[in-house]
Amino acid sequence: MDKNVLIAHGGGPTAVINASLYGALIELKNQNFKGKIYAPRFGSEGLVNEDFIELQDLSEKELEVLKNTPGSSIGSSRFPLYEKEYEAIVDILIKYNIGYVLYTGGNGTMDTIGNIYKHAKNRGVEVVCVGIPKTVDNDLGGTDHAPGYASAANFVIQSVSDCCADVKGLPIHVSIIQIMGRNAGWLTASSVLARKDKNSGPHLIYCPEVPFDEEQFLKDVKEQWDKREGVVVVCSEGLKDKNGNTVAEPMFKSDRATYYGDVSTHLANLVISKLGIKARSENFGLIQRCATTNISKVDQDEAILMGSVAAKAALDKKNGVMAGLKRISSNPYKVETVLVPIEEVMMDERKLPLKYIKNGNDISDEFIERLKPLVDKPTEKLLLVDKK
Amino acid sequence: MDKNVLIAHGGGPTAVINASLYGALIELKNQNFKGKIYAPRFGSEGLVNEDFIELQDLSEKELEVLKNTPGSSIGSSRFPLYEKEYEAIVDILIKYNIGYVLYTGGNGTMDTIGNIYKHAKNRGVEVVCVGIPKTVDNDLGGTDHAPGYASAANFVIQSVSDCCADVKGLPIHVSIIQIMGRNAGWLTASSVLARKDKNSGPHLIYCPEVPFDEEQFLKDVKEQWDKREGVVVVCSEGLKDKNGNTVAEPMFKSDRATYYGDVSTHLANLVISKLGIKARSENFGLIQRCATTNISKVDQDEAILMGSVAAKAALDKKNGVMAGLKRISSNPYKVETVLVPIEEVMMDERKLPLKYIKNGNDISDEFIERLKPLVDKPTEKLLLVDKK
Repeated sequence: MDKNVLIAHGGGPTAVINASLYGALIELKNQNFKGKIYAPRFGSEGLVNEDFIELQDLSEKELEVLKNTPGSSIGSSRFPLYEKEYEAIVDILIKYNIGYVLYTGGNGTMDTIGNIYKHAKNRGVEVVCVGIPKTVDNDLGGTDHAPGYASAANFVIQSVSDCCADVKGLPIHVSIIQIMGRNAGWLTASSVLARKDKNSGPHLIYCPEVPFDEEQFLKDVKEQWDKREGVVVVCSEGLKDKNGNTVAEPMFKSDRATYYGDVSTHLANLVISKLGIKARSENFGLIQRCATTNISKVDQDEAILMGSVAAKAALDKKNGVMAGLKRISSNPYKVETVLVPIEEVMMDERKLPLKYIKNGNDISDEFIERLKPLVDKPTEKLLLVDKK
Repeated sequence: MDKNVLIAHGGGPTAVINASLYGALIELKNQNFKGKIYAPRFGSEGLVNEDFIELQDLSEKELEVLKNTPGSSIGSSRFPLYEKEYEAIVDILIKYNIGYVLYTGGNGTMDTIGNIYKHAKNRGVEVVCVGIPKTVDNDLGGTDHAPGYASAANFVIQSVSDCCADVKGLPIHVSIIQIMGRNAGWLTASSVLARKDKNSGPHLIYCPEVPFDEEQFLKDVKEQWDKREGVVVVCSEGLKDKNGNTVAEPMFKSDRATYYGDVSTHLANLVISKLGIKARSENFGLIQRCATTNISKVDQDEAILMGSVAAKAALDKKNGVMAGLKRISSNPYKVETVLVPIEEVMMDERKLPLKYIKNGNDISDEFIERLKPLVDKPTEKLLLVDKK
């Protein structure tokens, strides 16, 4: 009797997490896999509770819609797992005759699958565990970049570019835009691709890898405001000062996550109170990771590819690995797929290398060259206010 | 010697305000207009300061790009005009041999062009003044709807739908989304078209036309939370209590505008503190009015049409009017263009009729039928978490 597959999601969804699910399902179909395909409803929570959705009979039409559905179609969670749950999970895998476990997620989720892998191995239970990378923050190691990132970057680039045009046409304030990424500045940095020229913005970009200095920030803003009214600043939600304290007070903390405070509002208030300049705060929030109108084609294709590579690896009994991408060249853009030992990526948080950050408030050309092949160009604009 | 044209923008830009400018320029070209076309840089401020951009020589390529440029390409302002400025403007119109004035904007801008019309008339100066409607709030009278609204609604519908999918896949909080519209709920109401079924959200919608009651709001949220975790609430930035006070403290006030406080954060904090349920605040902000990836085709076409109708009306010496749309039918969708006396729309603020609001926290089917032909359907979604 064929073993069954379990495929689960972990952590915050992205615009293309279901594209990876689609890729895995298509690969299983192509490989003529005959077992059941269980998806635990809401990730690890559904796994522990044996609450499964069966996916083996989805129609072609449903699969097509799934590919373009944002958020996690089968549900995800931030459900914490401990020793007791991992033991129970191995029993559940045996009970449902599951021989292959695929988990899509970031470094926290790779920790989960790595632990399932270890617990099954220790008990001599034959289960092949493979990770599928996913994160909008791009802070997952072992892969050049993770699916989800480029679509979020695409949203950020297009939206920052559109906001810059709006601000240029009505330049009555400093506009401070807050971007996702608690500890890693990859997504914040992507906003640099919205810049047509220095005059059009974004004018200042602050990543969490550089300690944030409020005095220097106010100087930077003042300098920009003196050159032009209508300044656009992009900042990470996770800015911290030189002592590692968040710039804005966290809204609340749990043992697994910190809900950061509103940095852009804090900075806008600083600009108003210290510089006497009107400022407004923009926080793209959730839509960064789920906007379907800004999905990057390259990202969606790579998400499908990662799902498919992981499913194939599982059937080939490549145990304890994560699918990944290795960049061969940026121009022309070329990547190879790789399988990375899961231990190398468990809880590993990859930050934006400092070489990509310029003067503490800007992003380097090297970063632009790296990101460019993954995203679309912003809508072309004619800004006649610049015309003499 | 041919008289010249002046074309200006007023108030907050939209994603299609430049499409109206494009429409006017194309009409002038088609009518073989030979004079100069002046655009005051940053609207009334540029007019008073005689700071003009000349548009008569834009290339076809530039015009095509202009059509898709968000924000105000020629610049807009919230520059207040008084008696002294209106007198000065008439002198400037004479000085530059301007015989036609076109102004694109909302009710405040129609007040401006109405006053220019009156001042010129009183002094016996022959200047044809025509307004072009524009507003994301849809609070401008005299027209079935104003260009700019449908694209903003398109963004809201798509984004709320995507956020609802995200929240459904990771239902760990009440998500409260704040939408533009200080006094009119048209844009907030548009979010109802994101709803596939009551289970998918948005679950509650609050417009500023109905006095907001915090106790009732908390009851509504609790009732929804008890049915399903993962509730999506949409609220207007301009919610007011039964005494007309804003729900969140305004950030600051000027004589022309109130910068409202962050209603969604205020409501999220209420849900956390009073109900003990996790809540997060989403505020789409500026991108609502400038996102180019969500421009409604109908809206862009109508923006071009309004620019063209206004330019033609001006050359035909129809003085003191605003171009507008009259709806003939919704299904099939059919509109006629009209010219409305400018006095009828000056400073007139059209709110969302109460017949479109259901139970104070939802929107009627009649509203849906009215808006549907102007916007796109949200991306189709497969939400397997609902599968048994």
